[in-house]
Amino acid sequence: MSQSPRPDTGMLTNTRTIRIEWGHCDPAGIVFYPRYFEMFESCIAALFEHATGLTKYQMLKTYEFSGFPVVQARAQFLAPAKYGDDVIAETSISEFRRSSFDVHHRVFNGDRMAVDGFETRVWVGADPDDPSRIRAKPIPAEVIASFARTRSPV
Amino acid sequence: MSQSPRPDTGMLTNTRTIRIEWGHCDPAGIVFYPRYFEMFESCIAALFEHATGLTKYQMLKTYEFSGFPVVQARAQFLAPAKYGDDVIAETSISEFRRSSFDVHHRVFNGDRMAVDGFETRVWVGADPDDPSRIRAKPIPAEVIASFARTRSPV
Amino acid sequence: MSQSPRPDTGMLTNTRTIRIEWGHCDPAGIVFYPRYFEMFESCIAALFEHATGLTKYQMLKTYEFSGFPVVQARAQFLAPAKYGDDVIAETSISEFRRSSFDVHHRVFNGDRMAVDGFETRVWVGADPDDPSRIRAKPIPAEVIASFARTRSPV
Amino acid sequence: MSQSPRPDTGMLTNTRTIRIEWGHCDPAGIVFYPRYFEMFESCIAALFEHATGLTKYQMLKTYEFSGFPVVQARAQFLAPAKYGDDVIAETSISEFRRSSFDVHHRVFNGDRMAVDGFETRVWVGADPDDPSRIRAKPIPAEVIASFARTRSPV
Repeated sequence: MSQSPRPDTGMLTNTRTIRIEWGHCDPAGIVFYPRYFEMFESCIAALFEHATGLTKYQMLKTYEFSGFPVVQARAQFLAPAKYGDDVIAETSISEFRRSSFDVHHRVFNGDRMAVDGFETRVWVGADPDDPSRIRAKPIPAEVIASFARTRSPV
Repeated sequence: MSQSPRPDTGMLTNTRTIRIEWGHCDPAGIVFYPRYFEMFESCIAALFEHATGLTKYQMLKTYEFSGFPVVQARAQFLAPAKYGDDVIAETSISEFRRSSFDVHHRVFNGDRMAVDGFETRVWVGADPDDPSRIRAKPIPAEVIASFARTRSPV
Repeated sequence: MSQSPRPDTGMLTNTRTIRIEWGHCDPAGIVFYPRYFEMFESCIAALFEHATGLTKYQMLKTYEFSGFPVVQARAQFLAPAKYGDDVIAETSISEFRRSSFDVHHRVFNGDRMAVDGFETRVWVGADPDDPSRIRAKPIPAEVIASFARTRSPV
Repeated sequence: MSQSPRPDTGMLTNTRTIRIEWGHCDPAGIVFYPRYFEMFESCIAALFEHATGLTKYQMLKTYEFSGFPVVQARAQFLAPAKYGDDVIAETSISEFRRSSFDVHHRVFNGDRMAVDGFETRVWVGADPDDPSRIRAKPIPAEVIASFARTRSPV
């Protein structure tokens, strides 16, 4: 894709086009920034679906876990986007660890990078000692393998 | 309250002041209307807490149900509100039935009614035949009684 | 489309597939209902773009108006949708009047209607007497004509 | 406040209690994290109102600017919060520069820090060369002075 020359890290990248809607924007007419973090959530679900072939709902059933809540998030907002713009979001996992992983989000508006974002997420399940609480769990090897198996579209 | 002369129906009414925030507003500078329905949800939780003394989280534990999803909602938007405005939301239950109830929401901005809203909600729990599904359940008599016991502030 | 046999009213209908995301859903695991009204907003923008060829941002510039805020909205919620579901939203304008119009939204989840919604919206512009306020304006004939000219995909 | 022993930096801190609502929470029953960034926006508006005595709407009129969009945001999510919890948000500006400022947000849930967040925001106004665009503007001295003049409640 011309607007994102990326060195080939071998990492699966999922790319989505997102229409910026009226309801995403604030009285200044530009995206209300928490909405970008909402998009990040959707982009990660789409990336995992690309790799595993499962929706997040199906993943939770299949791998018996509760989700992957965020423990750290940060973003730089480099250029605004307004309603009617179609932005391109590229999402990849830069590192898998035993029970956590790092995600890199890059959002482009035309030929400008609008947002450069990072998240660290933890794979969690119900705590066996207290099912009303959650606790980190190892990420299934099968999930990690699905990322290696799946190639980014060129 | 001067801006809402109400006939005394004997029904418990909960009143909240809600600050309209920048993030509630759209590029026209006024509340993006789905945000009013978000407020309705919060107002109902506050009304039930006023009556029962329990937060919604505590209610779900105490009465072993899953929530009260909306089956019908409607609203008239009569006057706009902008960020920085403090609106007054009045919420009451106009009728309890066996496993559903009707809610009336009135939102005032200064001396004007901004929103006049109605919802019908159903009390639901896990379906005993398929716990992944929900099914209507009778509203506990104790909950309904708590509304009769609690008087609106005058 | 098999799940929505519609009598041919001649009215332009726009159809979109919407992925229900984790962030659309509440602790019961189903769509938090104000999110449907957010979707309605996006669906209307898409319908007007289908008819006029302009994004909402471009429309506001071209037709020198401020938006089409909602004056009435109502919906029935007939079946739940959960994250990972792909719902189909069909949107059409059932009537254009001088400065207002009625919108019908039907959201299908598989072969069930999930939401049946209606909105009345008013075409507004800055009030010439007080530009900080808005006032109803006639809908441009060209906009209405674009709906008659554009046929629904069969 | 016992849960937040803070060295006295002399910086004005605004403290708010925020009820976590059903609609803030995701299918895991905990706050959907973009909602914390929404809260940050509201907390900053409240902090400026505390210092200047003006709502954000009034500030935009008084100081003839367009807002203070975020250029960087980051947060650590240290403990979850669920609907029905009342969290305490403390907000302060750690540095004012010519046309930008840094904000520190700390959110406590009971005696645990739930979120530790930072934002850098830029004071902007319409670009005189192209009023449809925004450009950094100096923060009015009067605004900065209002923070020095106003003491945190002890």
